[in-house]
Amino acid sequence: MTIDGLHIIASFFSYFWIVSPIKCVEIRVGGDRMNGAESLVKTFLHNGLDTVFANPGTSEMHFVAALDRHPEMNCVLCLFEGGTTGAADGYYRMKRDVAGTLLHLAPGLGNAFANLHNARKSGSGIVNVVGDHATHHLRYESPLRGDIMGVSQAVSHWTRVSDQATSVASDGAAAIQAARSQNGQIATLALPADTAWDAATGPATTSILAQPLHRPSLKDIEAAAMRLKTANAALMIGGSALFGPLRDLAGKISVETGCRLLADTLIPRISKGAGAAKLDQLVYPIAPKIAQLEQTSSITLIGADQPVAFFAYPDKPSTPEPAGCTVSSLCAPTDDIAWTIQSLADAVGVTSKTQLNTYALDLPPIPTGDLTLAKVGQTLAALIPENAIVCNESVTSGFHVIPPTATARPHDLLGGTGGAIGLCLPCATGAAIACPDREVIALTGDGSAMYTLQSLWTMARESLDVTVIVFANRGYQILRDELSNVGVESFGKNAEAMFDVENPTLDWVALAKGHGVPGIRIEDIDGFVKALSAGLSRNGPSLIEVMCPPAS
Amino acid sequence: MTIDGLHIIASFFSYFWIVSPIKCVEIRVGGDRMNGAESLVKTFLHNGLDTVFANPGTSEMHFVAALDRHPEMNCVLCLFEGGTTGAADGYYRMKRDVAGTLLHLAPGLGNAFANLHNARKSGSGIVNVVGDHATHHLRYESPLRGDIMGVSQAVSHWTRVSDQATSVASDGAAAIQAARSQNGQIATLALPADTAWDAATGPATTSILAQPLHRPSLKDIEAAAMRLKTANAALMIGGSALFGPLRDLAGKISVETGCRLLADTLIPRISKGAGAAKLDQLVYPIAPKIAQLEQTSSITLIGADQPVAFFAYPDKPSTPEPAGCTVSSLCAPTDDIAWTIQSLADAVGVTSKTQLNTYALDLPPIPTGDLTLAKVGQTLAALIPENAIVCNESVTSGFHVIPPTATARPHDLLGGTGGAIGLCLPCATGAAIACPDREVIALTGDGSAMYTLQSLWTMARESLDVTVIVFANRGYQILRDELSNVGVESFGKNAEAMFDVENPTLDWVALAKGHGVPGIRIEDIDGFVKALSAGLSRNGPSLIEVMCPPAS
Repeated sequence: MTIDGLHIIASFFSYFWIVSPIKCVEIRVGGDRMNGAESLVKTFLHNGLDTVFANPGTSEMHFVAALDRHPEMNCVLCLFEGGTTGAADGYYRMKRDVAGTLLHLAPGLGNAFANLHNARKSGSGIVNVVGDHATHHLRYESPLRGDIMGVSQAVSHWTRVSDQATSVASDGAAAIQAARSQNGQIATLALPADTAWDAATGPATTSILAQPLHRPSLKDIEAAAMRLKTANAALMIGGSALFGPLRDLAGKISVETGCRLLADTLIPRISKGAGAAKLDQLVYPIAPKIAQLEQTSSITLIGADQPVAFFAYPDKPSTPEPAGCTVSSLCAPTDDIAWTIQSLADAVGVTSKTQLNTYALDLPPIPTGDLTLAKVGQTLAALIPENAIVCNESVTSGFHVIPPTATARPHDLLGGTGGAIGLCLPCATGAAIACPDREVIALTGDGSAMYTLQSLWTMARESLDVTVIVFANRGYQILRDELSNVGVESFGKNAEAMFDVENPTLDWVALAKGHGVPGIRIEDIDGFVKALSAGLSRNGPSLIEVMCPPAS
Repeated sequence: MTIDGLHIIASFFSYFWIVSPIKCVEIRVGGDRMNGAESLVKTFLHNGLDTVFANPGTSEMHFVAALDRHPEMNCVLCLFEGGTTGAADGYYRMKRDVAGTLLHLAPGLGNAFANLHNARKSGSGIVNVVGDHATHHLRYESPLRGDIMGVSQAVSHWTRVSDQATSVASDGAAAIQAARSQNGQIATLALPADTAWDAATGPATTSILAQPLHRPSLKDIEAAAMRLKTANAALMIGGSALFGPLRDLAGKISVETGCRLLADTLIPRISKGAGAAKLDQLVYPIAPKIAQLEQTSSITLIGADQPVAFFAYPDKPSTPEPAGCTVSSLCAPTDDIAWTIQSLADAVGVTSKTQLNTYALDLPPIPTGDLTLAKVGQTLAALIPENAIVCNESVTSGFHVIPPTATARPHDLLGGTGGAIGLCLPCATGAAIACPDREVIALTGDGSAMYTLQSLWTMARESLDVTVIVFANRGYQILRDELSNVGVESFGKNAEAMFDVENPTLDWVALAKGHGVPGIRIEDIDGFVKALSAGLSRNGPSLIEVMCPPAS
């Protein structure tokens, strides 16, 4: 969002004899006269893109006008660009198809970058439309001139500048195709203002929905089938294999072969709770991760990259598998996961009679007494509704809160994969837009939530059924302990300054209220039980601030 | 800020037998053993950089530890990266020297980008330190691996990756030199984690503070002197000529030559109020801008780029000067403005006896009655304290609020130059840090403030004397009127959705409270007078929400 419209509005209010530049251009809709923006909106709709998360500025006005003529396009306003891309990521994870974002110039794309980084690492497909200056004006060093291409290429798989109104439709179709390809890509289309306002032809349709995905050879399938039947073999799944019917098939492969079913630490979406096929998820720290994989003779990857340490360690390996353990990629994250799983299931002899080894429903009793993170987890586990979506960016608190939910009612868990915090609230927003009939629970640290708190307003605006739980430990606890690890025992002025989010403390009830979301602060477990029950039964969003409890 | 520290903390809390990677590395301070981070901090301090606006993550822990050992370094925590770079911009504009920012990886730099765009357009010098993964770990596709170089090069004048601990000090010195050169540049230094933790040598000192600035020839000075004495000549000043002693000298040049003194529309810093040398500032809209320059025979630029239209117009020129008017750049924004102004003053015969044509002090009476923007402006004009700093991103409201302040007590006005909104609150924060003895008044639209509202917390944390005035018109008014210009008379569902920041309305008093800043909502002018007086006399920040008044 920028202030270039200031010029226009001053023009409009004070100087009636000025013909607005945009007024000069006829826009006739229908018949054979449409502009570039109109052709792009129609192209989106013709190709099944019907949701746009928007943070527009004035150079997007033609696109907005075109959106306005198409009420079948769902336009969701976000007050900060990180909210648009995080929402488009959450949307894709649940919908399995692309939404669009509408952004303004290079600074707008910059604000959107962190959650595009996260979306890229999640394998989510997104179509970004970024308005730019008119092409003929770009040779002047005007205030908003910036390097959209440079920023885009640092995070997008596909970038194009649509420099003619008559090619916008086909460029838009190409963007959608790119976003849908390779199991989800970041596609960014820069739209100069004159491209939007000039006359165009009609919309374009993608001839194929997406490029076909690569498949392993039957030889490799057979080799994998044999390998998985040997002792101490492991199958690590990722992407779409982590949820839905493919998860079940992977579970049956594990049953038929005796192999161990694994998932990596950071996952964009995974089926959780009762009925989910059992698997072992690798933990974060490198040494226990290594311990989890002791004795493993082989790891076969389907839809996952090889596991690596998140962080470099001077005296530790970068990868956790034991010496002598082979790591084979049967199917990359960008390959045909569904075909591979099905073919492998056939090859190992999975039939309709194959039993599935699943988590049983086992709801903990509702806890009482002091507030601890473990009890928060038990309460969640007891109350998560069937088919809920849990978005987790609770960082340190999550270690204690998530484990009890393994035997909760069936739900989906969305996690962070790119590591840039400020994902949770936007992601929960997009998931709720994609799945309006499902409850969404957003678990976030207080520091993380501050990056994109503006998403609370969009949740209220759209009346989304999201219950936000903020774990307020009043500081960047991670960093405190990390500094201790560096050998600093007593913190001086500067360390204290940078780790304590205190003096003043953030007031999340006030912050929620400011965005139009009702909130409550709780300090004991009974209060949490009440608040969570109320949030889940309420229509629309609510926020619960959980005050810094001990782990257990 | 990222969650990679999660790994470390899990390590710390749960697995005592794990040796943290960082514990493995000895850090001895003093003597001949220091690490790269230490050498960088010492280099900063040795070269006069003593303020860092920080939003660190775990890969910056060594730098944080080093900062902690140097309490003479002022470390200011910001909860969002846009707050760091906006503050460094405001700091430079007032201090005329560089501050540093501390950022985490590519996503952190992305979040910082919009206000770096603004800072670049303002000619502000900033040194960004961006932590990165350890160099030997970068070959793995780990979650946080990202393209720092790509993002940086889209907005920085100077980018370097410091890939060896023993070169960090000299790299830091080079960064400072680059940031101080050309009247202020964006210099970005990427610091891989191992570079920070490995052993280094001592700090480095820049051999010269900055590269020498280009000066025009005496021949060009003489030609300019003659040109300015001809009829209808204009002198347009920019950069450091807009305030302080150079502004006075420019005013005297105008008096001695009879030329017209001009400033462009968007300026990073300008002296305002009583005692400032009179000048004409170009307005925003292109047609009245053209009208302002009718009859002008020549424009001589010192420290300013040629004026251009902010926006391209199909039937209007991109530049506003009349046909036949010459535009000569005597001194570019990156040249030696001080030398040029002084030399030109000598050449046109300015002496100590030359009178200065200045704005006289003329405080309006305190208004009463209904709330209008004009009265808000009059109140401001009456109450702005001497030597205050006004940061203005009030967008549409500013048109009515700023003009009465022309004859207020002397103050500095900081404006937006890059057009990416979300500048005001961080900029006010940095200005207040740079000038702790001066009152700061921040004027912001409600939409703009939502991009970087987290800066309110830093204002409270640092007890900054900032009075924030939010003009709450409950929508992107600019965009509403702009859409009307496109010929859309009645807004449909999607336009309404994207222009109204209503349903729900933002509650700025609650948002301020959430960040630890006292706030008040006012709906009449008496309330505004009281609130502004109270804010100006109070120690620490406060916020006033002004409810959507008419213009006059």
